[in-house]
Amino acid sequence: MTKEEALYDYFIRLGDNALILGQRLGEWCGHAHQLESDIAMTNVSLDLVGQARMLLTEAGEVEGKGRTEDDLAFHRNEFDFRNNLLVEMANGDFAQTITRQFFFDGFYYHLLKSLRTSKNEFLQAFAMKSIKEVTYHRELSADFVVRLGDGTEESHKKMQNAVNLLWEYTGELFEMTEADELLIADGFVPDLDKIKALWENDMTATLEKATLTIPDTRGYMATGSRKGNHSEYLGFILAEMQYYPRMMPDAKW
Amino acid sequence: MTKEEALYDYFIRLGDNALILGQRLGEWCGHAHQLESDIAMTNVSLDLVGQARMLLTEAGEVEGKGRTEDDLAFHRNEFDFRNNLLVEMANGDFAQTITRQFFFDGFYYHLLKSLRTSKNEFLQAFAMKSIKEVTYHRELSADFVVRLGDGTEESHKKMQNAVNLLWEYTGELFEMTEADELLIADGFVPDLDKIKALWENDMTATLEKATLTIPDTRGYMATGSRKGNHSEYLGFILAEMQYYPRMMPDAKW
Repeated sequence: MTKEEALYDYFIRLGDNALILGQRLGEWCGHAHQLESDIAMTNVSLDLVGQARMLLTEAGEVEGKGRTEDDLAFHRNEFDFRNNLLVEMANGDFAQTITRQFFFDGFYYHLLKSLRTSKNEFLQAFAMKSIKEVTYHRELSADFVVRLGDGTEESHKKMQNAVNLLWEYTGELFEMTEADELLIADGFVPDLDKIKALWENDMTATLEKATLTIPDTRGYMATGSRKGNHSEYLGFILAEMQYYPRMMPDAKW
Repeated sequence: MTKEEALYDYFIRLGDNALILGQRLGEWCGHAHQLESDIAMTNVSLDLVGQARMLLTEAGEVEGKGRTEDDLAFHRNEFDFRNNLLVEMANGDFAQTITRQFFFDGFYYHLLKSLRTSKNEFLQAFAMKSIKEVTYHRELSADFVVRLGDGTEESHKKMQNAVNLLWEYTGELFEMTEADELLIADGFVPDLDKIKALWENDMTATLEKATLTIPDTRGYMATGSRKGNHSEYLGFILAEMQYYPRMMPDAKW
């Protein structure tokens, strides 16, 4: 694996996370219970899609085959996507959406915070810009988790169900590959074990405030996305997202 | 009709325009051909839904029956909506969406510009805040109209079709009722004939640049929304938008 391949891999991984989660949140657009949460979710979605554009553009650059952000978003197949399984999980009810967001935001926040001192110029600049948005996302989702977890009996129950359902998809966020090894050696990216420690600390503190418990999965965690093995959900997301662009491949507007 | 009733009517009219058009544009969320136009449309959608929230909240205040923005958005029936027919028209292709937006933005821009000097405190403040957003929307849609109208043979044809289809829904934007008369007398709102003159001037100039022609409708213009008579489209928009909130009327999250 060359350094360019490792960078492509890393950019795609981050870009696909932002793209797929942005797409998922966009499904709430006009479907939330309240205009306020509708707008909040759509705003987070827009931030993420904006970040995905930067990351996929840069992935295309480093790949050097002339692929644009739109080529990478709309004309790549499922097994070439590198987003984590967590972000492709169903929206479910609002509790499930917010729990997915909370797990992801915590990871993404600590990763970006560390990437602000990356020796890779693009990652450094990208992290400096995006940390502001993600800091806000993280506050928003943590706030919801506490309000709903420590809320009514019904909201607590829904939140605990969501935590139970999604916890096993969090292990994969911290899996490292050959790309990580190469890039860590150059001071481009952090060791994900360190990010994991910070993330776990956050999770424990907020979930406790929310009166929610981490389920005992007996060490089991879902895995697959680093190699392009996805849940059945991703195919449906891509079918919907890629339908128009693929139907009209030459439509430049 | 009391002055409060006239104000309620006016706020609802503006609020429903923003809400329904915001909803329509939100349907593009994740379905545009390019990530860039996807984000642009979603941003406009968010601005409009934000404006709708302010207007519906104020409508509830002036009505004095304790109805919130969410009550008015999610628990009102089709014949109580007062948005113009134009904004409920189908998205169609991108040419149709952008033409609808261009017709509406021109109207809304000149209306808000005039409302900045309204003697009604809320309308004045609302207009001052919203004109910035709508100035940008208007530039964006006019720019697209020129690029696509004066673009390829195919894009020109699609744009001319959209103009032909939607032109007859523009007359209604300027219809005045008893509410207008009452509020004009108090210096609260402008005479829509004056807004129409400014709007027509804009339309002619931009459409000419775009090499597009205004169709001859022989004086015919669609009408109905001022009395709550809508196209078949509105029912479907509301069914989708109101489904969750009505299914779970007590869900406060």
